[in-house]
Formats: sequence, structure tokens, C-alpha cells
Amino acid sequence: MTSRQVARLTADTPAIADAHFRAEAEPFDPDARPDGYLNLGTAENRLLWDLVGPRLAALPAPTERTSRYAPLHGTPELRERVAALLTGTCRAPLAADEFVVISGATGALDAIATALCDPGEAIVVPAPYYGAFDTDLGGRSGARLVPAPLAAADGFRLSAEAVDRALVGARRAGAVVRAVAFSSPSNPVGEVHPPGVLADLLDVVRAHDVDLIADEIYAHAVFGDRPFTSALDPSVNRHWAERTHLVWGFAKDFALPGLKTGVLHTRSREVLAAARALAYFAPVSTATQEVFTGLLDDQGWVAGFLAEGRRRLAESHRHVADLLDEHGLPRAPAGAGFSVWLDLGAWLPGPGAAGGPASANGRSLADGFAAEERLWRELLDVRRVSILPGAAFHSPAPGWFRLCHTVGAPLVTEAVRRIAAHVHTGRTRGRADGSVHVKGDRP
Amino acid sequence: MTSRQVARLTADTPAIADAHFRAEAEPFDPDARPDGYLNLGTAENRLLWDLVGPRLAALPAPTERTSRYAPLHGTPELRERVAALLTGTCRAPLAADEFVVISGATGALDAIATALCDPGEAIVVPAPYYGAFDTDLGGRSGARLVPAPLAAADGFRLSAEAVDRALVGARRAGAVVRAVAFSSPSNPVGEVHPPGVLADLLDVVRAHDVDLIADEIYAHAVFGDRPFTSALDPSVNRHWAERTHLVWGFAKDFALPGLKTGVLHTRSREVLAAARALAYFAPVSTATQEVFTGLLDDQGWVAGFLAEGRRRLAESHRHVADLLDEHGLPRAPAGAGFSVWLDLGAWLPGPGAAGGPASANGRSLADGFAAEERLWRELLDVRRVSILPGAAFHSPAPGWFRLCHTVGAPLVTEAVRRIAAHVHTGRTRGRADGSVHVKGDRP
Repeated sequence: MTSRQVARLTADTPAIADAHFRAEAEPFDPDARPDGYLNLGTAENRLLWDLVGPRLAALPAPTERTSRYAPLHGTPELRERVAALLTGTCRAPLAADEFVVISGATGALDAIATALCDPGEAIVVPAPYYGAFDTDLGGRSGARLVPAPLAAADGFRLSAEAVDRALVGARRAGAVVRAVAFSSPSNPVGEVHPPGVLADLLDVVRAHDVDLIADEIYAHAVFGDRPFTSALDPSVNRHWAERTHLVWGFAKDFALPGLKTGVLHTRSREVLAAARALAYFAPVSTATQEVFTGLLDDQGWVAGFLAEGRRRLAESHRHVADLLDEHGLPRAPAGAGFSVWLDLGAWLPGPGAAGGPASANGRSLADGFAAEERLWRELLDVRRVSILPGAAFHSPAPGWFRLCHTVGAPLVTEAVRRIAAHVHTGRTRGRADGSVHVKGDRP
Repeated sequence: MTSRQVARLTADTPAIADAHFRAEAEPFDPDARPDGYLNLGTAENRLLWDLVGPRLAALPAPTERTSRYAPLHGTPELRERVAALLTGTCRAPLAADEFVVISGATGALDAIATALCDPGEAIVVPAPYYGAFDTDLGGRSGARLVPAPLAAADGFRLSAEAVDRALVGARRAGAVVRAVAFSSPSNPVGEVHPPGVLADLLDVVRAHDVDLIADEIYAHAVFGDRPFTSALDPSVNRHWAERTHLVWGFAKDFALPGLKTGVLHTRSREVLAAARALAYFAPVSTATQEVFTGLLDDQGWVAGFLAEGRRRLAESHRHVADLLDEHGLPRAPAGAGFSVWLDLGAWLPGPGAAGGPASANGRSLADGFAAEERLWRELLDVRRVSILPGAAFHSPAPGWFRLCHTVGAPLVTEAVRRIAAHVHTGRTRGRADGSVHVKGDRP
């Protein structure tokens, strides 16, 4: 018999993870497996290995000193280098002592939520939001997430007013709200938040006397015209820096998600003490910290690598955007991140198993999300394209999907072709190669 | 303002960790720093780097595939190799699917405690016990530890009756006891538990219907005549294997504590699901998992390495045992682990700041432990020898200290010389080099 506190973690099977590993097990190959899965569901950047791999291979092996016990909240060497990097990125002076290194951005989110919240207390999150926030912020801390719905008509742009409304509503409903959490740049939409909106958001959290958790893990993945502004940038945050906590990691910007290295930055002495105590439970291997220390050591290489990363991201985004335009598939505008936020609302299937094209208008939200899930499963089961449905991101409106394009142009081209074929042909249940077959017993 | 749930983690400064990093900052060097610290407080095995280092250096660099997202409860490759190794060590068939790889043995202990206990529920632990169990098992789960005192007269040997008494007592006092946890071989005492005692212990936990958590992190660090018996060995555990959960890691047996890689083994499907969900928050870098996969790949090397490790441990133990005998400092018998459990009870200082030799007899336990702490601080501050006081291990009797001898013979010789000089000279406040000085403002 297991504990009640672990029950909230084991209640759901994570559909996203299932889809990921299923897609990875039988990947598309134009020659060997032309009907294989196209995994555009996972926010991995697969465009950078030629730059990162040789650097990793050239790093020295762990030494005796670096294989021993080190401070469990991160080696001073790595924290210093991360502080130097992010001081530039965030245009705010960040000190090594304000950082905690921890097992992945997940660990950092868990630490900050646990430091701020007791079970049942609330964190307001503008929605759509990164679906794993539910587990990362709430799974162990017991905090519950309250979505602040953003407007579909507005492309789900961040709105301080929407956050304010959610805070007021949550408190009226009796919630003890401890924080607002958001991704900046946003995930799944890919918006680079404008300084004015960030300043407004900081006014709102300050007025409500709650902390701000800014997940800036995509800080360097900005390819559009608008530059990144950190929530700690003094131009937008003059009075709330002690109550603003940043999360960052090496998974996205350095394309090394397996190495599970995240950081939490805070200027609150109390939160820092709590985060250090929590990092004790999820420290990063000193060998891996040494890898990142080595990578960051060469600042010239880092600057060039990040610039080339942005160039390739822009190119990858342009490719998918052009394809989607060609096929008449709409999307929200994006200036950052690995994905486009695709609007398939016009093609949601009807309530039957074989419905034709339908609009999301004129039916209940629940019906809309049920249709969205059917379309998601059709794309995964029949077309073998893994993209994630908006429901996984608490999208306020049905019919949206996150498509990650950082998997190389040929896979993106094939995926968009399959999606377009599916929605434009009245959704005949065809195989990925275009031939029609009767759906078998695959769930 | 931080949460109530994190308060239990930040209330105490960990004196052990402080002593460790203080000692590491100014280490003894016979030439350069003859009055430097001798750190015999940390259970690190520093006798094996010449064997491990070259193997690490020879391993291939991470590849693109192994740098990507992998199952967060451990790569199949590493779990298979760990299962093969421990199947041999534990003489029980352990399957790869029964393992969760997690950030250190700490992570594994946290996961099993959280899976089994809700806040306020109890885990009974034979004492003296590994001091970090309080944090590892209770810090995040909220479980509280109930010591089952073992007898000093008996060298603190494991006793199923003592555990039974503690279980009965805890339940009479109204506690909801979920598990018994223990180190096997024991830490700090270094006892290799006899099969008969283990079988008795399993009868006790079964009679009380509680789970057994066996921390077998020193499973390969056995150098005495009695071989290791796992709590899962079918000869001692025929009926309680589903309720017995093993913890192991690479910190001790492979002398790579910085790499923070632990495993939890369980045959309970429910606990396994819980542990996998918890491993999500504390995964191990795929690069580090690859390192251990590579090390374990060569079974011939592993067997030779572990045998040589045992040989060096025996030699190191013989060295410290002979020295202690020479200086007339008693200890409990040990057949495993990195430490000796030293009995300085005859030399505990009196209540004053400069008391002479005194016996622990005839005063209260509280006075005894206060004297033990004074002696510990004297040894650390004046003699610059870091060993850990029994109170850090919830010793039932004052005056015991854990001295880790796996730091090389010269350091051990110097440390025992300083300890003996301190206790045998009426504890004159002398410097490590023997000269007398007035104690300054060091705390």
C-alpha cells in the first residue's frame, strides 16, 4: 500500500511521455521505415549536435577531485559560469551564490514551488501553459495550479489583466495563492513577451503580494525581431526582484536534455536556503557539472554557438511556417522556442467516429476538447505523427496543437504533408503512406 | 516567506556537512600544511582512484542518442547491468524492470519513504544509524524516524528483538508505523549482519505487517570473514520479498560519490510505479548513466576491481585497528564499511570547559552527549581532526565516534596520533603540531 501523497503522482499515465516513447521506438526513415512515426511532440532541438558533440568529446575526463562529494546545490565553478552567462542574457547582475544547480528544470520548478507553497495552496499560470507544470510545480509540493486563460483571438498573448483576473477570482474562491508562474519566452505559443507586458505583470504580482516564478529555459532560443527580456531585467522589475525566481537549464539552449541540469536563481535568502535544502535530494552528477563548466568556459565558443543556434532556429521556423502557409494551416505568431502553435480548430472531427470537417464553434468546450483528442489520436495512430493537443497545455480553446519543428526539415516536411493530407481529405483513415486501410486494434 | 513543509529542511544547519567542507578547505599536508585538517568524517573511499580513473578516462564521449531524453527512471542499459551485478551480490534474481535509477542513494531513500509514508507516519530504525536517514527518509516525505536502540555492551549488533520492542512501543504510543529501515552492512558500526538475524528481522517486520527498507550501499565493501547476505536473499527472505525494498548506489562501492547515482529495487508494482513517478524529479544525467553502463559492461574488470577494493579495505581496516590498539583506544568489531566505531567514552570531558578525563558512567545521558559534543569540537577545532560524534548517528550511548579510515594510511596514522595525544594528555588545548596555543575565536 503506498502513501496518499504519492497517489497524486501515479493517478495518471502521462500521455505525452507515452506518445514520445512510442514514436521514438519506430521512427520514420524515408527508406527503411517510410510509414514510421514522426515525433514532433517533444521539445528537443536536434539541429545542434554537430556543434555540441565535438565539444563534449574534447572535454577532459572526470578527475579524482571532481568525482568526489561537492556542494549538493552545485559546484562553485558551474554556478559562476552560469551566473556570468545569464547576467548577459538577462541584463541583470546575477551572482553565483544566488544559484542552485539541480536535476533538471523540473527539479528547479519543484524546488521553488515546494519552497513557496504548502499542499493545497495555489499558483496562477497564464494558459495555455507548459503541460508538465502541473507535475513539476504541483506533483510533490501539493500546490494546485489555477489557469489564467489567455485569449485565442489575441493569439494567446500574455496579458497582465488576465493574470490579475485569475488572481482575484482564485482568492474570491478561497484559494491561498502564493505565486504566479509562466514561461518566458512562452511555451507552447513561442511568444517573446514585450517589456511593457512584463512590467505590467510585475505590477500585478506586486499588488497581489505573490511571488513570480519565471521559467526562462528558452531564453536563448529567440529568433524573431523582438529581443528577450528577462523578468529580472531592471527595466521591467525595479521593486520585485527578491520575489522573482528564475528557472533555466541546459536542455533547450544547449540541446542536451538527457543531461538533466537545471538551475534556480533567487535573491531571497529564505528561498535560497530552502532551495539548497531541496537540491540535496536531486543533485547533478559532478561529472555532468564538469561537462557544462567546460562548455561555458570558452565564452567565445558559447557566443558563436548561441548565435548559430538562433540562426538555425529562425531557418527551421521559416521552413515550417512556409509549409503551413502553403497547406493553409493557420498558427499563432512565434518569435522563440522550438514549436509552432497550430490551429486545427476548423478541422475537428464531429462527435461520431468518422465525422467530416467541423468547426469548433457552436458546441460545448467539452465536446470541442473531445474532438481535439480524437484528431490527436487519429494523427498519432493513423498518420503516425506525434504532435501534442492543446488540452495537454490547458489551452482555453480546443483545436490547437503544438508542433515542434526542431527535428530537421525533411521530417517537418513529411509531418506537415501528413497532417494536411489528413485534414484536407475529409480525414479518410489512411495510412501514413497515403494508402487506405481499416484501423486495426491499435488503441 | 517560505512554506511550512520546507521549514523542517532548513531548521538545522547540518553540522556534518559544515565539518566536511571546513576540513576539505584546509587539508593536512605533511609539508605544506602540517597543521591542516584531517577529514576522517566523510565516508568516502579514496583508495581506488588509480583503478577507477583510467577506466573513466577510457570511456567514449556521450553520443547524440545518449544525450537525448531517456526514461527518467533510468536507461534500460544501466538498469540491466545493475540488475546483473546485484543479482550476483544479493544471490537473488533481480530484474532490470524492478529498478529505478535516481539521483543518489539519498534520492532512492526519499523515494521509498515518500512512496510508503504520509507526513507524521513512522519508520523504525535500529540505532545507531546513518545520520542522514533523518533527512533522506524524513525530510521530504514527512515521515518521522523512531530509533530502536541497540546495546552498547553488545557492540551495537543488530537485534530483531530490539526492532520488535521499538515497533511495539511506537504503536502503543499511537504511531502509524509503515516501515523498518536499516543499513546492511551497518553504518556506522560496520557489522555484516548474520543470516539468522536477518531472518529474525524479516519475521518481525512480517509479524508487524510493515515494509523493510534495506540500504545495502556497502554491499561490496565487505572485508571480514562473514560474507554479505542481502535482505532479499531467499535463504533469509522467503515470504516478504514484495515488501522488502533495496537501496544501492555507486558512491561507496565504486568510490564515485560525486556522480550521485543511486538505485531502488522493489518487487511491489505499486511502489515501483510510485518510485518511477518520484524519479521524474531527480533523474540522473544520461551521460553519467552511460559512464556506469560502460564501467559495468566489463564484468571481468568489475569482479577484479571489487576484489581489489575488498583487499584494500581489509588492509586499511587492519592499519587503523592496529593503531587504535597501540594507542589503547577501543572500538566495536567491524567486517565491512569505511569506518571504525570508536569508543572514547572513557575520555569524555567533564562539564567545565577544561575538565580532565572522565567516565560516561554516573551522569545523565544528556550530560554525556553534551560532553561528547565538547570532545568532538575539541578534536575538530584544536586537533583539526574531523570525525563524527555518535549523536550524529543517534547512538543510544554517548562517547562513540565514527572514524573513516579510507583516506590513506598516512592521514589515518596522523589522525589517530592526534586523537590519542588529545585524550591521553589530559586534553591540553594544544595545536595539531603539538605546540600549545590559546584557543582563538574559531567556534
